[in-house]
Amino acid sequence: MSKITTGIIGAGRIGQLHADNILNSSRYQLKAISDIHTDHLKGTRYEKEVPVITTNAQELIQDPEIDALFICSSTDTHACYIKDAARAGKHIFCEKPISFDIEETREALKVAEEAGVKFQVGFNRRFDKHFRKVYEAVQDGKIGSPHVVKISSRDPEAPPEEYIKRSGGMFMDMTIHDFDMVRYLSKSEVAQVSVKAANLLDERFSKNDDIDTAIITLTFEDGSLAVIDNSRQAVYGYDQRIEVFGDKGLVSAENESTTNVRISTKDSIVLDHPKYFFLDRYKEAYIEEIQDFAASILDGKELCCCGEDGLKAEMLALAARLSWKENRTVSIAELESVRV
Amino acid sequence: MSKITTGIIGAGRIGQLHADNILNSSRYQLKAISDIHTDHLKGTRYEKEVPVITTNAQELIQDPEIDALFICSSTDTHACYIKDAARAGKHIFCEKPISFDIEETREALKVAEEAGVKFQVGFNRRFDKHFRKVYEAVQDGKIGSPHVVKISSRDPEAPPEEYIKRSGGMFMDMTIHDFDMVRYLSKSEVAQVSVKAANLLDERFSKNDDIDTAIITLTFEDGSLAVIDNSRQAVYGYDQRIEVFGDKGLVSAENESTTNVRISTKDSIVLDHPKYFFLDRYKEAYIEEIQDFAASILDGKELCCCGEDGLKAEMLALAARLSWKENRTVSIAELESVRV
Amino acid sequence: MSKITTGIIGAGRIGQLHADNILNSSRYQLKAISDIHTDHLKGTRYEKEVPVITTNAQELIQDPEIDALFICSSTDTHACYIKDAARAGKHIFCEKPISFDIEETREALKVAEEAGVKFQVGFNRRFDKHFRKVYEAVQDGKIGSPHVVKISSRDPEAPPEEYIKRSGGMFMDMTIHDFDMVRYLSKSEVAQVSVKAANLLDERFSKNDDIDTAIITLTFEDGSLAVIDNSRQAVYGYDQRIEVFGDKGLVSAENESTTNVRISTKDSIVLDHPKYFFLDRYKEAYIEEIQDFAASILDGKELCCCGEDGLKAEMLALAARLSWKENRTVSIAELESVRV
Amino acid sequence: MSKITTGIIGAGRIGQLHADNILNSSRYQLKAISDIHTDHLKGTRYEKEVPVITTNAQELIQDPEIDALFICSSTDTHACYIKDAARAGKHIFCEKPISFDIEETREALKVAEEAGVKFQVGFNRRFDKHFRKVYEAVQDGKIGSPHVVKISSRDPEAPPEEYIKRSGGMFMDMTIHDFDMVRYLSKSEVAQVSVKAANLLDERFSKNDDIDTAIITLTFEDGSLAVIDNSRQAVYGYDQRIEVFGDKGLVSAENESTTNVRISTKDSIVLDHPKYFFLDRYKEAYIEEIQDFAASILDGKELCCCGEDGLKAEMLALAARLSWKENRTVSIAELESVRV
Repeated sequence: MSKITTGIIGAGRIGQLHADNILNSSRYQLKAISDIHTDHLKGTRYEKEVPVITTNAQELIQDPEIDALFICSSTDTHACYIKDAARAGKHIFCEKPISFDIEETREALKVAEEAGVKFQVGFNRRFDKHFRKVYEAVQDGKIGSPHVVKISSRDPEAPPEEYIKRSGGMFMDMTIHDFDMVRYLSKSEVAQVSVKAANLLDERFSKNDDIDTAIITLTFEDGSLAVIDNSRQAVYGYDQRIEVFGDKGLVSAENESTTNVRISTKDSIVLDHPKYFFLDRYKEAYIEEIQDFAASILDGKELCCCGEDGLKAEMLALAARLSWKENRTVSIAELESVRV
Repeated sequence: MSKITTGIIGAGRIGQLHADNILNSSRYQLKAISDIHTDHLKGTRYEKEVPVITTNAQELIQDPEIDALFICSSTDTHACYIKDAARAGKHIFCEKPISFDIEETREALKVAEEAGVKFQVGFNRRFDKHFRKVYEAVQDGKIGSPHVVKISSRDPEAPPEEYIKRSGGMFMDMTIHDFDMVRYLSKSEVAQVSVKAANLLDERFSKNDDIDTAIITLTFEDGSLAVIDNSRQAVYGYDQRIEVFGDKGLVSAENESTTNVRISTKDSIVLDHPKYFFLDRYKEAYIEEIQDFAASILDGKELCCCGEDGLKAEMLALAARLSWKENRTVSIAELESVRV
Repeated sequence: MSKITTGIIGAGRIGQLHADNILNSSRYQLKAISDIHTDHLKGTRYEKEVPVITTNAQELIQDPEIDALFICSSTDTHACYIKDAARAGKHIFCEKPISFDIEETREALKVAEEAGVKFQVGFNRRFDKHFRKVYEAVQDGKIGSPHVVKISSRDPEAPPEEYIKRSGGMFMDMTIHDFDMVRYLSKSEVAQVSVKAANLLDERFSKNDDIDTAIITLTFEDGSLAVIDNSRQAVYGYDQRIEVFGDKGLVSAENESTTNVRISTKDSIVLDHPKYFFLDRYKEAYIEEIQDFAASILDGKELCCCGEDGLKAEMLALAARLSWKENRTVSIAELESVRV
Repeated sequence: MSKITTGIIGAGRIGQLHADNILNSSRYQLKAISDIHTDHLKGTRYEKEVPVITTNAQELIQDPEIDALFICSSTDTHACYIKDAARAGKHIFCEKPISFDIEETREALKVAEEAGVKFQVGFNRRFDKHFRKVYEAVQDGKIGSPHVVKISSRDPEAPPEEYIKRSGGMFMDMTIHDFDMVRYLSKSEVAQVSVKAANLLDERFSKNDDIDTAIITLTFEDGSLAVIDNSRQAVYGYDQRIEVFGDKGLVSAENESTTNVRISTKDSIVLDHPKYFFLDRYKEAYIEEIQDFAASILDGKELCCCGEDGLKAEMLALAARLSWKENRTVSIAELESVRV
């Protein structure tokens, strides 16, 4: 195989993003896109450049020419498509979260594992050049043993109510990226989760049994700590900062600004804002993650974030919700035991 | 009164610091210093410039010429000196913490209140120009309603074991400054404290029933949140950063570096370290706080941090210890009820 | 015309860069590439994606289907191709400098003007997002009247001797970008040029009657000033900083770093280097400039940098050389007068 | 001698600044202050703390108890006082410039040399911690051989016309600090000076045969270069930046801001201004320079900036004026030859 023949299930914002990156990549050939609606694709470049556009995802799953599927449909459909795709021998790239239900996720991952297909989860931030450099500094021992991982992760704008309803809650929708990043950067697994959360922005959140602001403290098995602070609305732009503090030093990644320009006047010294939107901030990371997926299929490179990583982040999101709801520290072992 | 005639009880590191600042100030006259030992003061400027040097603190307390006393002796002696000094009608500047015992603190403050003397606690960071500017931005509504107060506070070097033993524990010795800063910056009082802490550096801490690393989450009465992360050892220097995040923006204070010099070579781009020691970092703040104390005595200016602020920070330190020990969220109301 | 059918003359580093950007753009169709050698294109994407690959530039110039030509061949061939292409009615995008000879440049521009074709010069930095923001701040009056334009422009690595020989000298090869930027940012034309230059790196430069380091001061017609400092070798990376100082303020653009990561240890606080290579630093600017060229052809948008801009920058480069050689201030009027 | 008994001639802004620092220093005793007027000193701390306040400078010069004199009177009186003080055996600290006339300066320095007294010039910036660190990096070979020294030096506010009249012109009054800094940082002496200057702010300057904006290029004897850009008015604050670029790297000093606070809102990201006034920006440097002078007298430490440094900076200021007036490059040898 010199190019990966690919299909995309789900052509919303994120599906189209992957479609564009796949079309621009020399390692992929985009054969098909499916979505429950296809009207919005009329007149786009996909109509001309993608041979098959269909409302039937099974067409893609059953197409013997297709090597790999990108699952970008709504979360509740992921598990089902994963299992079908795996059984059809397709490599799978699945958007986060894998599902809203741990058991469902486990089952889907088991099918994929038995089928022997590659399975990557869309934790794009692992491929961000800034965070990658933080990771490498930790791996290279530049800061010694990690003691505290800190993440500030704030969206620029609160989502509309429709989105909140279907999001699975802030922890599953937004913090899940931070949970994955915490695991990626630390050298130990999370043992306990403790959350203080609040609804400080507007009623859209509380009405939907959700929150908009949270401090999440994580205790690792080796005794070290992590803390995430989240907000659904940072009016100054997308705030994405990370630091890992260890006994030999600190490595930290600042926000990426739109430009490096500074305007100094009598009134003020003004800098440019952080990049406002995740599609802009992580533009290159989205390209990198599909290159890595290609490298795992074509070159046998080890996956950087696999199904297990998706599952673990989901478990942290569930633990966080439980901690919030019951106002107590939740141990991951509690959730594991559910398994039996 | 045109100058405040002053005595200092306790001539250790912090007592000497205040002595120097008082000697350099035009609003104070330093008449006396007492300490249990006075040998270390021989040959210093104090011998020449301070009329009375004694091992008997009562000499200062009973001296009718003395207007104000700086209490810089060991914490266990504070309450006793406060009461005696207040009854003798002296204004009091007391180093933090007021005592290790809330009831003792309450009693001392009550005596001071009844005596009608000024009482300031040595929360010097309130007078730091960076943090003061953060405070003003919050007060001026620049960031709207505060949602999350964040403090990173890390000492450059772990203290010796002897110090740890007598410190009252990390929360009472070190975090107490951060507790005060959280209260100073937010617009609400703390309702709950939740701590995850660890001993990650070396055995000196655990042997003395203490910790060296902690994440402390605070819930305010208005529902907003704060988080403090502490470490007893940041090898790159004294790490003192603060941010307040609100619905209209973010105000943050970065570390103060030794210089603004950057060296760019083939190997690296290198910046100067943060100022290494608290005496250097807060040098100007220590001067400002005694100027403010002078202004309250001489000009009737309102105190910026009074006895009540000292008490409240102590209660947060105790709540933090309890939260750590019992691995649970502690409400301040629990501690209040002890009062009855 | 919905897409611009395009040919590229010259398939070296910069020609290939444009080829890639053209192939990835929806507004262009790349029909042909010519170069005096075509062996190096075998096995590349061009072989598959570009219908015509030839050693004969005239094939492109005479092809009636081709709307626009990118002239990326060696500088001594530019003028000739420009004239032929213009007479054949092709729109022209020409790499800098247009030629090494002002009269030749004038003649080529005259032919293009008479033919009524669009003519853009490859001053890509005008399209850099940082510098564009500086430009806009100046235009918007944010800094009042410009008094001093300052540019630091240093290459990361000195070129090989072969390159130096054919470069036309540092002023024509490298400073020409800065000359254009000075004109772009200021609101007046240059009246005088004064240069101090030196050969400080190695003999490759002096052997070829060239220099590697220079301070170039420019006096504008309105009396304001500009200063450029150049070096052929900045070991810490590609150094590209700009500031415009005016009576109401300062606008400045810092270097763009590879990442925003900081590593703080006992030894040092280390930042990432500036992006090392111009192809990386100006990657997006190279895309923007051909989009702008397309917009001028397809949408009638006014050109951002036209032939006259190319000519003026060349004149400044010649004046700089004369100033260096004769160790005196050279007025642009001297060079203009040559015209008569 | 354990303390230096000191007198100050001239009690204007800078004389009072030195008086305060001397009074606060343990190495000096301030015995006397003279000024042509002494009314403005009534009711100040000097009245109480300085034994002698007089309108007669000769009282100080002839006082056998006085070891050292600070000459802070108007520039036209410096040379005369230097000679008298030197002949009376007093060590001399003289404010910049030594005089407006090179021959006068040479003569004064000769007398001081023959008298064998210490002679320091008030180039306070050599003692600034930021610039000192730049100096040390250059000395330590961190950036290899210096190729280009760059200084941006801009006053926050243009001086009143009265000041301009008596200033000796911008080069002698303001740039003289930068000329000294260029010499301090480079490893070679200046051979040539080339200036482009302008009057862009208002008529006060041209009316007094002065300018407000300049680019000054310096050529060193070893072929390396320096460039200074000056303005009499930077509305955003006192702009004092320095960089030294060499074949192994770059060392640069940024402005010192009032605070490190950043306010991020929907509208902007705002930083604090640079310190606004030279007394604030160089507060510590002014203290350091008199400590260094004390160390040279009391401990035999070598002077950091001696009379020769004062003379050389003056010569550069004169060369700059000549270059501006005659619009040509001026070699220092021309001025030297005047000597004969």
